[in-house]
Amino acid sequence: MALRTGAQYRRSLQRLRPNVYKWDQLIEDVTVHPSTRLHVDSVAHSYDAAFDPARAPVFALASPLTGQPAHRWNTLLASPEHAIGNARMKREQFHHSGTCQGATCAGWTGLNALWATTWEIDQELGTSYHPRIRDYFRYIEENACALSGALTDAKGDRSKRPSQQRNEDATLHVKEVRLDGIVVRGVKAQICGVAAAHEIVCFPGTAYSASDRACAVAFAVPRDVQGLRIVETRRPSDTRDEEDGWDSPKVGTITQAWLLFDDVFVPNDRVFLCGEHAYTGRLITHFSAMYRAAIGACVAGQGDVMIGAALSLARANGLSQKAFQDKLSQMAVNNEVTFGLGMGAVLLGKQHPSGVWIADSLLAHVNKVQVAQLPYQTKLIAQDIGGGIAETGCLPSYRDLTSERYGDELVSALDAGADGETRARLARLVEWLTIGGGVPGCMHGGGSPDGARLVVRALEPWEDFARDAQRIAGVRTTVPEPAR
Amino acid sequence: MALRTGAQYRRSLQRLRPNVYKWDQLIEDVTVHPSTRLHVDSVAHSYDAAFDPARAPVFALASPLTGQPAHRWNTLLASPEHAIGNARMKREQFHHSGTCQGATCAGWTGLNALWATTWEIDQELGTSYHPRIRDYFRYIEENACALSGALTDAKGDRSKRPSQQRNEDATLHVKEVRLDGIVVRGVKAQICGVAAAHEIVCFPGTAYSASDRACAVAFAVPRDVQGLRIVETRRPSDTRDEEDGWDSPKVGTITQAWLLFDDVFVPNDRVFLCGEHAYTGRLITHFSAMYRAAIGACVAGQGDVMIGAALSLARANGLSQKAFQDKLSQMAVNNEVTFGLGMGAVLLGKQHPSGVWIADSLLAHVNKVQVAQLPYQTKLIAQDIGGGIAETGCLPSYRDLTSERYGDELVSALDAGADGETRARLARLVEWLTIGGGVPGCMHGGGSPDGARLVVRALEPWEDFARDAQRIAGVRTTVPEPAR
Amino acid sequence: MALRTGAQYRRSLQRLRPNVYKWDQLIEDVTVHPSTRLHVDSVAHSYDAAFDPARAPVFALASPLTGQPAHRWNTLLASPEHAIGNARMKREQFHHSGTCQGATCAGWTGLNALWATTWEIDQELGTSYHPRIRDYFRYIEENACALSGALTDAKGDRSKRPSQQRNEDATLHVKEVRLDGIVVRGVKAQICGVAAAHEIVCFPGTAYSASDRACAVAFAVPRDVQGLRIVETRRPSDTRDEEDGWDSPKVGTITQAWLLFDDVFVPNDRVFLCGEHAYTGRLITHFSAMYRAAIGACVAGQGDVMIGAALSLARANGLSQKAFQDKLSQMAVNNEVTFGLGMGAVLLGKQHPSGVWIADSLLAHVNKVQVAQLPYQTKLIAQDIGGGIAETGCLPSYRDLTSERYGDELVSALDAGADGETRARLARLVEWLTIGGGVPGCMHGGGSPDGARLVVRALEPWEDFARDAQRIAGVRTTVPEPAR
Amino acid sequence: MALRTGAQYRRSLQRLRPNVYKWDQLIEDVTVHPSTRLHVDSVAHSYDAAFDPARAPVFALASPLTGQPAHRWNTLLASPEHAIGNARMKREQFHHSGTCQGATCAGWTGLNALWATTWEIDQELGTSYHPRIRDYFRYIEENACALSGALTDAKGDRSKRPSQQRNEDATLHVKEVRLDGIVVRGVKAQICGVAAAHEIVCFPGTAYSASDRACAVAFAVPRDVQGLRIVETRRPSDTRDEEDGWDSPKVGTITQAWLLFDDVFVPNDRVFLCGEHAYTGRLITHFSAMYRAAIGACVAGQGDVMIGAALSLARANGLSQKAFQDKLSQMAVNNEVTFGLGMGAVLLGKQHPSGVWIADSLLAHVNKVQVAQLPYQTKLIAQDIGGGIAETGCLPSYRDLTSERYGDELVSALDAGADGETRARLARLVEWLTIGGGVPGCMHGGGSPDGARLVVRALEPWEDFARDAQRIAGVRTTVPEPAR
Repeated sequence: MALRTGAQYRRSLQRLRPNVYKWDQLIEDVTVHPSTRLHVDSVAHSYDAAFDPARAPVFALASPLTGQPAHRWNTLLASPEHAIGNARMKREQFHHSGTCQGATCAGWTGLNALWATTWEIDQELGTSYHPRIRDYFRYIEENACALSGALTDAKGDRSKRPSQQRNEDATLHVKEVRLDGIVVRGVKAQICGVAAAHEIVCFPGTAYSASDRACAVAFAVPRDVQGLRIVETRRPSDTRDEEDGWDSPKVGTITQAWLLFDDVFVPNDRVFLCGEHAYTGRLITHFSAMYRAAIGACVAGQGDVMIGAALSLARANGLSQKAFQDKLSQMAVNNEVTFGLGMGAVLLGKQHPSGVWIADSLLAHVNKVQVAQLPYQTKLIAQDIGGGIAETGCLPSYRDLTSERYGDELVSALDAGADGETRARLARLVEWLTIGGGVPGCMHGGGSPDGARLVVRALEPWEDFARDAQRIAGVRTTVPEPAR
Repeated sequence: MALRTGAQYRRSLQRLRPNVYKWDQLIEDVTVHPSTRLHVDSVAHSYDAAFDPARAPVFALASPLTGQPAHRWNTLLASPEHAIGNARMKREQFHHSGTCQGATCAGWTGLNALWATTWEIDQELGTSYHPRIRDYFRYIEENACALSGALTDAKGDRSKRPSQQRNEDATLHVKEVRLDGIVVRGVKAQICGVAAAHEIVCFPGTAYSASDRACAVAFAVPRDVQGLRIVETRRPSDTRDEEDGWDSPKVGTITQAWLLFDDVFVPNDRVFLCGEHAYTGRLITHFSAMYRAAIGACVAGQGDVMIGAALSLARANGLSQKAFQDKLSQMAVNNEVTFGLGMGAVLLGKQHPSGVWIADSLLAHVNKVQVAQLPYQTKLIAQDIGGGIAETGCLPSYRDLTSERYGDELVSALDAGADGETRARLARLVEWLTIGGGVPGCMHGGGSPDGARLVVRALEPWEDFARDAQRIAGVRTTVPEPAR
Repeated sequence: MALRTGAQYRRSLQRLRPNVYKWDQLIEDVTVHPSTRLHVDSVAHSYDAAFDPARAPVFALASPLTGQPAHRWNTLLASPEHAIGNARMKREQFHHSGTCQGATCAGWTGLNALWATTWEIDQELGTSYHPRIRDYFRYIEENACALSGALTDAKGDRSKRPSQQRNEDATLHVKEVRLDGIVVRGVKAQICGVAAAHEIVCFPGTAYSASDRACAVAFAVPRDVQGLRIVETRRPSDTRDEEDGWDSPKVGTITQAWLLFDDVFVPNDRVFLCGEHAYTGRLITHFSAMYRAAIGACVAGQGDVMIGAALSLARANGLSQKAFQDKLSQMAVNNEVTFGLGMGAVLLGKQHPSGVWIADSLLAHVNKVQVAQLPYQTKLIAQDIGGGIAETGCLPSYRDLTSERYGDELVSALDAGADGETRARLARLVEWLTIGGGVPGCMHGGGSPDGARLVVRALEPWEDFARDAQRIAGVRTTVPEPAR
Repeated sequence: MALRTGAQYRRSLQRLRPNVYKWDQLIEDVTVHPSTRLHVDSVAHSYDAAFDPARAPVFALASPLTGQPAHRWNTLLASPEHAIGNARMKREQFHHSGTCQGATCAGWTGLNALWATTWEIDQELGTSYHPRIRDYFRYIEENACALSGALTDAKGDRSKRPSQQRNEDATLHVKEVRLDGIVVRGVKAQICGVAAAHEIVCFPGTAYSASDRACAVAFAVPRDVQGLRIVETRRPSDTRDEEDGWDSPKVGTITQAWLLFDDVFVPNDRVFLCGEHAYTGRLITHFSAMYRAAIGACVAGQGDVMIGAALSLARANGLSQKAFQDKLSQMAVNNEVTFGLGMGAVLLGKQHPSGVWIADSLLAHVNKVQVAQLPYQTKLIAQDIGGGIAETGCLPSYRDLTSERYGDELVSALDAGADGETRARLARLVEWLTIGGGVPGCMHGGGSPDGARLVVRALEPWEDFARDAQRIAGVRTTVPEPAR
């Protein structure tokens, strides 16, 4: 059963113990509840893609581990081609739903990062984490799992380390080590795609020193593991996504959640790091290089939809593509910069001795800096092209546009290059993409741009550049950094 | 009664005939209905300001027309000082509510523009519109009215003129001229602040030629005039504004509405333009010069609140101002550019022979171009500083944070440089300002940036510049524009 | 003789003792030497303007001090109108020569700043500096002087104060105070327009504390004062400006110089500050507010010429304005932003009790930040529009284009929308404006943008903004800056 | 002799017939003439690199054609690794000389593009051009040639085709076809590196239609072929490069030239395209994809030197790296974006059936758009960090700084974090890199950004994006482009 249909996927989610909440209420069935169903729908669509000849090459492949057909997000990223495949799949997922699909993303990348890091730990410390990852990877492949990845902790006061926080649960940590496993406790925050996942892979969100070694823990649990409660967050206009009608698109959506681990037991075969704090930095480095080589594809994918939405709305407004071509081309340039720069990071990557392909860290982090800027310019242009109707809150609601009292008059007044309803739907799409429920977290998602800048700072050979410049200038002495 | 308290203002609104709708339902009392009350609250606050010694100098003054104390938005803009006062009032209104206050803005500016244009028409055509404006201005001053201004028409297909539209009601027009007044019909779209206004001033949204002279009409009506239905629009996260709790701020908000004029009668003394199509262009020119000299103050005001929100949230996250000073300073620079450029337009303005001060059109339109860009960068920085928690949809809802089941755990996990609830409130404020209900329409509000660029194009002396350059280059021949 | 013609001005310069050097050679006559004559030409043009009815209103006015006709740069800046006049004159000077005119700029502004500061010192310390300025101002007005202003010192190691430098001459300072005057010594660096000036006004380039009070000195000297040697700097492509032919325009140019004060005596009536270190900060504040309110006009003026040059070259290339209109309009927007923002600073300025009008410091410094960015984008667009021929080093030299061997072939090959020579001249103009001798120092001229940002930081009411935001968010506690 | 030393290279250039001119004079020996020697020096350095173990892996490799060691710029670009090698070599060349090296660049890329295009022509038309290229490629490899590539024609009026020009020589064209070869005539303009090359490869600069088939010609000639005269252009501050002293660096420089073909005979074995106009578009497409995948490395290389120069100068000014780290990191981000995006274009490229690897055209052209923007921001930051001394024309000349009269005083005044001469040299380097002779033509070099935007426009699937958006929005009808 390495490949599942969307229907099978839905049924498998329904078999999980309900432990997801929103609006202070337990969600009994994530596949139908208005807060979660759209995200499940988009993931189901990715499952079904494996059976669609046109889309299968992007969404499925022969597993590098087993040689069997597998969903792409269940496979090892073993080569540049696999990394390209990751990027192409993400771009296509955005083309489908217009937004982000958490349950086929960070968990998968996290496993690949753990693949490399556990290999290093085993080599250097004589531990045996890597075989566990290998087994677990096989498990998720064979069971065609959807995976959420949980890095970010609630953290508390950002100027303090975990062990200095008033509330030690602000960071997920090992509370107890037993013979057969570990007990973990604490809060992971703003985790994508949990409600649509079977499994959650947890790992440290930053590098820890010895004093915080209890937080140096990586493991996997079923989404419905005992002791875990999941609270969905509010997104912009999320109640609109939950309404009937077409004030927001109904193809897919993001979900994010907070995870409350209340003394959750994890058996040893699912523990991949436990106290080896010196490896947390490397793990994050591997993860972010892989992850940020692909996020450019995500924002490109959404940018493509923004192009389509703005162009369609312009036409619905009665105007031609030509009037906006420069702006549309700038949107395209922005999209391709983030997409292409990620591909450059892949090309300059390296094969890790454990077998995964790790993208170039410098270029991957440079791309994160772009991802925190360019999509916002793209959004701006979409609103510019779309006109006032799409910008922010300029349209009556679905309920008003379909009112028996005055709906016809409103819809007639909207009639332009396309009929009034079509125009309104497109305006709502632009709004949703640029200021509504479809906006993904480009700024801090997958880490903050300032963090990425720190990596750039660490990796650039400043002194080499200074030496070259001094030689070219014909400087005969050394020009040292001033003493304090 | 040239000055009203906020309480008097509320009561006066309650006396109007209910004709405002949202969610397909009639709003019986705009001062308490969740869709409209916050906007009314913010306008009431501006009324009360006239009685607060600290704020009165900004919100009230001795009327240039009558010499009597008046609310600023009921007075003639007769000098640079009045124009500065307009800008300062708007910046302060934003400081109060974090967003835009439609009922003290466009209608007022429209009257001032009509003041100049009617004077010109009367001079040139021998009509007597100007005395009507003079009387009406006195009326709104003496009755301390809140005024909405309606420019934008539904328009329909943007590549066609009003008279070419399938639906002639897509543009508000004169259906019939009677001895005692006119009958108007059609749809005005996305009009700010109507629900909180006593009166609506309508005027053309663009320049019309003779074939569309029926649309060359300006007039004022009471908000509750017979034949007018008002449908409020949806804003981003508007249902959130209507909820209990603090998932959005509860100090003020924007409203926008569509106005359905179904054969509304306007008596002659409130008709300020009727068929004189040749003056529609001048009217728009006067209006936009005045309006766009002040919008920089609006976005500066909101930018100031974004600075405060980002700075407060950074501290609540446990971080100091110093870490973000460069970014905060860039926000400030953006705010002051739009504010200061508007003031430059005022300084280079001119006294119109009718008595109003008209800002420099070129600089006012250049400012519109800035307003369509800089605030978006400011928003971006606010999200950057605020951290992931404030970016988009990363926080559980008020209902979840106050849940008896797990609210305490969530709030504890949020505890950082400030207590968890404080941090959550500030994060919600950043979200609301940058991607929620508080976002004003900087792009197309008050006209599109592309329209402003057309004015820049029309006003720059291109050939003078070419001549200077050719002289400096020592060119001896002329360098003409190529023939087709 | 409050007004001089250009010819009179030239003769007066010729009467000065030669003390200006370039290329290790003494310049005997600045009005004809190839290194200095173009700057003198442009200043002479400003003198002649007083006698040209079309230009006189911009270049001359009735002196606020004497009521007599005076060159604008010899008059007190006593009102917003005078500040507007300063800006308009500078923009027009750039229109004439395409570049900066140092001898009618910083010295004049410096005198106005000293006007205010000496008034304050006299009020507070009982000194009598202000009458000296008053007399000196009258002197330069009556003698129709060109004035250079020297702020910047050589400084040495920027992390140290003057008194900590290895070379104490790195900053101009008082070496000796005598009964009848003072003796000054040290180096002023990169001072504009000296070679074309009759007088040099020196004042501190930054705020000094008590330990550096010897540097707290302001005074005026004739350009040819005993003990002063002046060394002209190299500018980009400066030898090209000195060549025959039209590889650079021959209308005007910038000059900058280093001033070596070797124990120069200054009589008391020309000493305006001597040791009152506490006033150096205020002096700089007054100066920079006035100066930076006007620099936007300078860069706008050059930007106007860039528009003209790019547009003319496009036509000479055979292309029409329409193809580049968006880019041309963006250039115009950039120009008007810096111009208009400076005017905003003027409008929000204040009348100093001494009688000068001091522009708003916050807006003036915000404008400096713009001036360090926008003109560079404008240059970029000029190169973009101009095509490869104008970008950098793509054209054969004047000598080659006029060669008897192959000049005709080259010029024929250049023939396009205009004849080959015309096209080449325009291409050279774009090069000169964007990467040649015509480029003014927008980045650091009149102070660095980082310094301006510090002023922005100092003047913005951060805590007020934080308080507003917290109130709007409904925060109930205080959110303090974290303790260290 | 597939590898030559720099000394051998110089001697081989000296054996060529003198036919290069500048300042209306014949250059007898390009290896020593001040106008050309620096460019020759930098190319010689690349030759020597093949014998330096540390640099050889970048500058030399086993030829894919012959298996023999060869200079990289003499080899087929047969794989992604070769494309990476091209980029790395260029970045390192910039690290060496701070600027561009024309004689190892466009000619080489042109041959690779002709490799693919001649293969296509032969396949489709049954011609036999490809074997000629194969032989010629072997020739230049075995003779270790430096190659200039000439695309750009003088063109004349840009709104007209070559056959419509007044001067038919404005475009290089076939004047006569003989049995043994062709005779060509016309002017190629602004061609890089000619003076340092043995051979010149000419090919069309744009796509031609049948009416201009005479211009559809590609061929190779020795630089000193009979009938060819070469006129070097002026570069910014080029006379400074020709002076003694250190007012400009003396490690390398750019040269550009105009080529006057006066009935030059080309034998058949060096003719690679002759009249097959339909292939000119494809040739340009292949060329620009390869070329623009690598130009990002060029500007990154220069950007690296700008980082080094700015950082060194900051220290020489007495300031530490920390004060400028954000700005330095932004420079690094800019550099890596253009470098990495080019690598992305390589990764997504394809193996052409003829054997060359052709980078992805869309990403390559997107990169051209970046190259026309980001380096300019990087330059700006370099001037910002460097301080006024480096911005533009603020330093006395070498001759003045070494003057016996006052040189010591000037140099002492310059003393800061480093000695005065060191500081001056670094300031001159920043000037040279940002506004002097070292500035490469990022805007139009290798084609204009507007041309690149046209390619982006042509390659983006606009209608696919529109369809996706309409599906997501739930639109039921089609939304067509408006009819005219």
